[in-house]
Amino acid sequence: MQYVHPFSFGNRTMSDLLGGKGANLAEMVGLGIPVPDGFTITTEACQEFLRTGVVSPNIHAQIDAAVLALENKVGKKFGDTTNPLLVSVRSGAKFSMPGMMETVLNVGMSADVAARMEAMTGDARFAWDSYRRFIEMFGKTVCDIPMHDFHKVSDPILKRDNVTAVADLQGPALREVGDLFVGVIEKHTGQAFPWTARDQLLQAVEAVFHSWNSERAQLYRRRERIPADLGTAVNVQMMVFGNIGETSGTGVCFTRDPSTGHPGAYGDYLPRAQGEDVVNGSRNAFPLTHLKTLNEPAFNQLQSIMDKLEAHYKDMCDIEFTVESGSLWILQTRVGKRTAEAAFQIATQLVDEGAIDMNEALKRVTGDQLGNLMFPQFDKSSGIKELTRGIAASPGAAVGQVVFDPRVAMDWALTGKKVILVRRETNPDDLGGMVAAQGILTSRGGKTSHAAVVARGMGRAAVCGTDSIEVINDEQIFKCGDIIVKQGDWISIDGSNGAVYLGEVPVVPSAVTEYVQGHLDAASPAASTLIKSIDRILTYADKTRRMHVRANADTPEDSDVARRMGAQGIGLTRTEHMFLGERRHLVEALILAETDDERHKWIAEMEVLQYEDFVGIFKVMTGLPVTVRLLDPPLHEFLTDKGELGTKIALQEARGEKVSDYDLKLARAVNRLHESNPMMGLRGVRLGVLIPELFTMQVRALARAAIEVKRQGFDVIPEVMIPLVASQRELLYFRNSLEEEIHRVMAEAKSDIHISIGSMIETPRAAITAAKLADYSDFFSFGTNDLTQLTWAFSRDDVESSFLPRYLDLELLPFSPFESLDQDGVGLLVKIACKETRSVVPNMKLGVCGEHGGDPRSIHFFHEAGLDYVSCSPFRVPVARLEAARAVVMADSVSSTA
Amino acid sequence: MQYVHPFSFGNRTMSDLLGGKGANLAEMVGLGIPVPDGFTITTEACQEFLRTGVVSPNIHAQIDAAVLALENKVGKKFGDTTNPLLVSVRSGAKFSMPGMMETVLNVGMSADVAARMEAMTGDARFAWDSYRRFIEMFGKTVCDIPMHDFHKVSDPILKRDNVTAVADLQGPALREVGDLFVGVIEKHTGQAFPWTARDQLLQAVEAVFHSWNSERAQLYRRRERIPADLGTAVNVQMMVFGNIGETSGTGVCFTRDPSTGHPGAYGDYLPRAQGEDVVNGSRNAFPLTHLKTLNEPAFNQLQSIMDKLEAHYKDMCDIEFTVESGSLWILQTRVGKRTAEAAFQIATQLVDEGAIDMNEALKRVTGDQLGNLMFPQFDKSSGIKELTRGIAASPGAAVGQVVFDPRVAMDWALTGKKVILVRRETNPDDLGGMVAAQGILTSRGGKTSHAAVVARGMGRAAVCGTDSIEVINDEQIFKCGDIIVKQGDWISIDGSNGAVYLGEVPVVPSAVTEYVQGHLDAASPAASTLIKSIDRILTYADKTRRMHVRANADTPEDSDVARRMGAQGIGLTRTEHMFLGERRHLVEALILAETDDERHKWIAEMEVLQYEDFVGIFKVMTGLPVTVRLLDPPLHEFLTDKGELGTKIALQEARGEKVSDYDLKLARAVNRLHESNPMMGLRGVRLGVLIPELFTMQVRALARAAIEVKRQGFDVIPEVMIPLVASQRELLYFRNSLEEEIHRVMAEAKSDIHISIGSMIETPRAAITAAKLADYSDFFSFGTNDLTQLTWAFSRDDVESSFLPRYLDLELLPFSPFESLDQDGVGLLVKIACKETRSVVPNMKLGVCGEHGGDPRSIHFFHEAGLDYVSCSPFRVPVARLEAARAVVMADSVSSTA
Repeated sequence: MQYVHPFSFGNRTMSDLLGGKGANLAEMVGLGIPVPDGFTITTEACQEFLRTGVVSPNIHAQIDAAVLALENKVGKKFGDTTNPLLVSVRSGAKFSMPGMMETVLNVGMSADVAARMEAMTGDARFAWDSYRRFIEMFGKTVCDIPMHDFHKVSDPILKRDNVTAVADLQGPALREVGDLFVGVIEKHTGQAFPWTARDQLLQAVEAVFHSWNSERAQLYRRRERIPADLGTAVNVQMMVFGNIGETSGTGVCFTRDPSTGHPGAYGDYLPRAQGEDVVNGSRNAFPLTHLKTLNEPAFNQLQSIMDKLEAHYKDMCDIEFTVESGSLWILQTRVGKRTAEAAFQIATQLVDEGAIDMNEALKRVTGDQLGNLMFPQFDKSSGIKELTRGIAASPGAAVGQVVFDPRVAMDWALTGKKVILVRRETNPDDLGGMVAAQGILTSRGGKTSHAAVVARGMGRAAVCGTDSIEVINDEQIFKCGDIIVKQGDWISIDGSNGAVYLGEVPVVPSAVTEYVQGHLDAASPAASTLIKSIDRILTYADKTRRMHVRANADTPEDSDVARRMGAQGIGLTRTEHMFLGERRHLVEALILAETDDERHKWIAEMEVLQYEDFVGIFKVMTGLPVTVRLLDPPLHEFLTDKGELGTKIALQEARGEKVSDYDLKLARAVNRLHESNPMMGLRGVRLGVLIPELFTMQVRALARAAIEVKRQGFDVIPEVMIPLVASQRELLYFRNSLEEEIHRVMAEAKSDIHISIGSMIETPRAAITAAKLADYSDFFSFGTNDLTQLTWAFSRDDVESSFLPRYLDLELLPFSPFESLDQDGVGLLVKIACKETRSVVPNMKLGVCGEHGGDPRSIHFFHEAGLDYVSCSPFRVPVARLEAARAVVMADSVSSTA
Repeated sequence: MQYVHPFSFGNRTMSDLLGGKGANLAEMVGLGIPVPDGFTITTEACQEFLRTGVVSPNIHAQIDAAVLALENKVGKKFGDTTNPLLVSVRSGAKFSMPGMMETVLNVGMSADVAARMEAMTGDARFAWDSYRRFIEMFGKTVCDIPMHDFHKVSDPILKRDNVTAVADLQGPALREVGDLFVGVIEKHTGQAFPWTARDQLLQAVEAVFHSWNSERAQLYRRRERIPADLGTAVNVQMMVFGNIGETSGTGVCFTRDPSTGHPGAYGDYLPRAQGEDVVNGSRNAFPLTHLKTLNEPAFNQLQSIMDKLEAHYKDMCDIEFTVESGSLWILQTRVGKRTAEAAFQIATQLVDEGAIDMNEALKRVTGDQLGNLMFPQFDKSSGIKELTRGIAASPGAAVGQVVFDPRVAMDWALTGKKVILVRRETNPDDLGGMVAAQGILTSRGGKTSHAAVVARGMGRAAVCGTDSIEVINDEQIFKCGDIIVKQGDWISIDGSNGAVYLGEVPVVPSAVTEYVQGHLDAASPAASTLIKSIDRILTYADKTRRMHVRANADTPEDSDVARRMGAQGIGLTRTEHMFLGERRHLVEALILAETDDERHKWIAEMEVLQYEDFVGIFKVMTGLPVTVRLLDPPLHEFLTDKGELGTKIALQEARGEKVSDYDLKLARAVNRLHESNPMMGLRGVRLGVLIPELFTMQVRALARAAIEVKRQGFDVIPEVMIPLVASQRELLYFRNSLEEEIHRVMAEAKSDIHISIGSMIETPRAAITAAKLADYSDFFSFGTNDLTQLTWAFSRDDVESSFLPRYLDLELLPFSPFESLDQDGVGLLVKIACKETRSVVPNMKLGVCGEHGGDPRSIHFFHEAGLDYVSCSPFRVPVARLEAARAVVMADSVSSTA
């Protein structure tokens, strides 16, 4: 097997084998762009190393051959002191893992080589700094020696020479430092320093392989959901030097502004510097145009290379380059990372420029980007400076007073204060405090930590893994560098980008949200180019997608928002939400009623309220379907908590007070209705079988509302959905009782509005017997939240806070199955149900209601499974519209390459 | 379509079409047995009637033609007054529904016909009693007139003539009564009485069809699980009369004793009587031999017919016959019902007689029968008489004091009293009282009532639907006829046969249980013939079955019982059961531990106990596999109840008492571990991922116990089972951690006992992804209880007491899916898992542990699904051994007829 390839082999599609960096280097070589020559050791070599723990003799031999070929090509010799070839050894995985992986520069170095470099360039500082730099990087990367061991020996030299940084030393002192570093390494390893170029190279390669499994890299992969078994490629490349005198320098540039998307080159240039110096910000860089003043031919050449690369990649590119003694070298390129705003703008610009078509534009933006643009934003014009940045763990902008103790958070929240809970990391004990907080900030843990998973589940903003802050619970403070933040101080956190600010940053509504709600006209001159871009893309998405997008909405107000956001109907109206809050007493009264008369009275009161709710929703949604789900939750959810009531009564009895008859009655009802696992108890259709009058009331109110709304001239398309169905017999029985009531109402009113009746598919049994349920169902709607709970035996309320984070940490789960559909398990049930259903009723309308309906990955799955619609929260409707279209173009591109 | 067939058409296999009675009549005609001629109207005609509500002209025409053919055959004429033909009209469904369905005798009757009968027989009483009987039956059955309406007009005649029963009246008075009855009918219907024979017949047929859906019949079918859409056939048969003078009579006989199985004819004969008179016990019948003294030729003829029928049916037959003026007529036969004891005895007798082979013998007995014989029995020799009988709803013999109020039952039980809870019917509020009671007696509801379902779930004896008793809650008594039973009175109930006794009936252990436990040797001369029969059949069953039978046992004692009962291993040892009772504090202490040292201390204590348990079980089970399931339940099950603890602390605080630190700590732990749906929370493998030391302790104890037991010379075959697995990754991760620990222990001890590690399949996800789990599992064991809960979203603890009985009542479920596997839903998942697994690992060992493993219907399913073993409670092992063999022979007979 070939484990080593010269850059002249391959192209950018081969990142699986060559890593992202290697594949792009090969692509550039193919385009005739000046790239320092070299070769790539493949990810397969790394995988072999990870399996066996050694780099095989075969790979060693292939590396030797590649070095020889490189020497012949560039006319220099590795380890030679006359015309020495030095190389960089860099990791390059399939997915970029910035700062995570190891690099060794100047491999092939020795004191003799450095002396020769001094002689060739006349620049002693350059030569001996390269010497020092190699030894330091080798010690750190290959020998795993902590930096402070090196500082211990270099600090006296700095003091002696009265400078503050190693870079300020002169040539001889740099050599001295380098030699001292060699001593540190030899002492640490107990072996002589490898002065052979080949030994240096092989050890550096192995160190890069090894770094794939460093703790830091593992953590990063978990955070970014990068599979653990990919391995990294290694790029060995001839060194070019940006730090040889004034005619050298190094820079980074983008072909468009990665932050705003504005067209035109954008970047930094730093004369007399190496790549790291630009990135680490140790010296202030100049704008790219500075290169023009210094070296116009090199600048023009760079400009034309940028044009070439963008035309070739048909996308904004990110380029690293070096000018060595006046000559331009391109070290790296890739499709540039960009903000959500830039993504939309660049996509439509490229369409306008004829580089890509609208289908391709759809692939260049994501629902998550659109979703992030829709959150309220911190007002950038307020001028408050970022304190630090952590991991964007749960989107949203949150402002509050810092609290470290979850119980204090709960107390403060009760008094109306806004708090941000700050913890090293959270655990199940902190749940109450998390609920009470506006947002959560942690110093440890990533996107799958307890804090992140729970915050996303609750819709709270969260910034996690902010390792630049130190939380000191004993002192009730956190430190960020020199800054100390105390309990009660105000901070602001942005869960969409991980930013943390001191003070109360003003929050402004998102213009994108104004636009998607129809409050802002994209055609008006005042609309920003971002809004115009989004409008073009969403308009095209609506023409492209096959699936309809509906919304989950329980009130006329929510329905109105949903409609404005582009919902093509309501996929889920939860009628139980109509009996919460101040209406809760109605259900309690019904449960406690002792006579039929009492029961009828309460049911009649409930009917009036339901009727009004339905009338409101039907009017707003005129011309579009509205799916009403009958009562779903267990009745005791409407009652007082069993433990609280028991304690109250026990206390009254202890004090010798009379316990009220009502409380005693209530206690009996609560005990009777108590269930050890209510999620799998008396709820949904089962309630309808046991207490039919409650559900006939619901369809009666619905039918009457439909008649009234139609009478007023609206176009009403009502659908009734039965929850928790598990068998054909219960569906048939229950459907009959609903139909009878509907027919009665229609006959009385001499009306004939069609009300279709469908079933939720949310029990595994319903999924696997869907073909039987299809006999008595006009449509199916997958309830993937319950289906996930039952398929996994995961009670969402319980597991998100208990073991799910641990499972994500250990990579036992790639992601929470409540955030994104588990395609192999729950998805398989969905596919089976679709297939079985369509085999008996080819045109059966199939949809999904629930949060997965707004999740991009899940939407693609539902598209492929053949659903007719997804239904999600109103706020996610634009995201779903976009992703439903992306599912079409991405499935097409898969099938066209297949 | 042919809706009417003469008895000469068809045979006994055609009960679907002709009903059980009709099919057997046809069979007897084919055998040349003297059966009064007639014809059968098919179940299809009934089904048409049930659909359309009318008997079609086509069916009328076919009946007319059949009457004509009958007239020609027997030489009598229907409705004729010279040589009149009278017929009986009887229902005859596929399954016997004794007492449920309607009969009209003497159809074709009129005053003229009766007068002619008097003239022909010289027996006025016979003739006019037949007249009276017809009119009464017609009024009751066809016109739905209550009996007391008839009594109102007949009572004055009885008084006048100074007799107590209508049957004691003379001819003229009987005619008078008949005429008065005609008046009652005409008044009730407002129409003239139908004196035309044809009208009488057609109305009687329609009434029989109609009776299929009488409330009584519907209730019976639900109790007996007979499908509602079968319909009944109607048999129209020439009347023969057992009540013409002294040379006539009627009887019922069995070809063997249906109670004990003893060979030889057994039955009753009543001279000068009609069939009902024998059945209703209004007159004392003579033993069958009485007929010999009266009419030896008829007796001999009957004996030879019995021999012929038994030889033909190859089974014990139940025969109704009539002697009319010295001539024998057979009215009906069928394979006779028998007790469990008789079933085993008759089966082996027939084998000895060469009538059937052992395979057929297996089909003649059931696991339920064997199971019933294993319950402790009431001592029949104690001579106490049965009070009454209800429906045998949940087997077992229970003795206790009568209590009507569930709360009183709980109070009494707390003081150590044994109580029988007596209710009209039970509901979820009664649960506490049901738990406290030895047994449950209800006056209403059948095998699927709340009381029955809950009692079976809890293993309590129950007799339900005892409609002969009246429960009067206000007076705290129940009445049975004249007998009044008060609170505190002792009663005894037998849930295996429905018998209710007054007083404390002594309970004797079952000899069958002694035998299956190996305490009683079937080969010893002292063993009863029943024991010898069971021994033969079980021995043959063990040779015949393909599936192994294991037991669920958590202690050495249970394991010993299981082994004696024939278990071929332990399929489930629940290790959590080792930490209940007095050991519960260990888990609590572990949960509350605050330091690693504390935790290690408690874990070390637990390990000692587990080790001892395992050593004990392994020794008992030497040479057989033992499957140990690691901790399964949520941890909080080992802690104090959250509500109770909260109340306790609140009360202490209210009293100003100091709450102990321990209680406060406990309260925090209880709150932290509280879950809203623990069944789907932190349990099983998930606990193992979160608290690995608890589970490594378990396998360490297990491995060390195996080593020690082997050292002592026993043959140990340990298997470890991981509960609640849902994904391949968690299985792999967890399995690795177990294997490491096992290897460590083995290496330390220089031992190499193989411990296989398997996974439970109890989440739907595990079932549908079984092929993936198979990569890291040495065996699978289906946990069909949890799988049922999750597939249906049925929390067993909750639904059995809340809506399941209602679902069974409404026939939304045919049976509780916890009692017998839901083959269409849960079973489909089992089948999918088996198929997918075997497609990748053809030899994978597959079993089931849990109660379904002891349920006959489910065992047949598991056999067909291809499982290698079932595991059930030790007591059910013999039942499972028998049914696993029956599954083989019954599947074979299905495939050989297919």
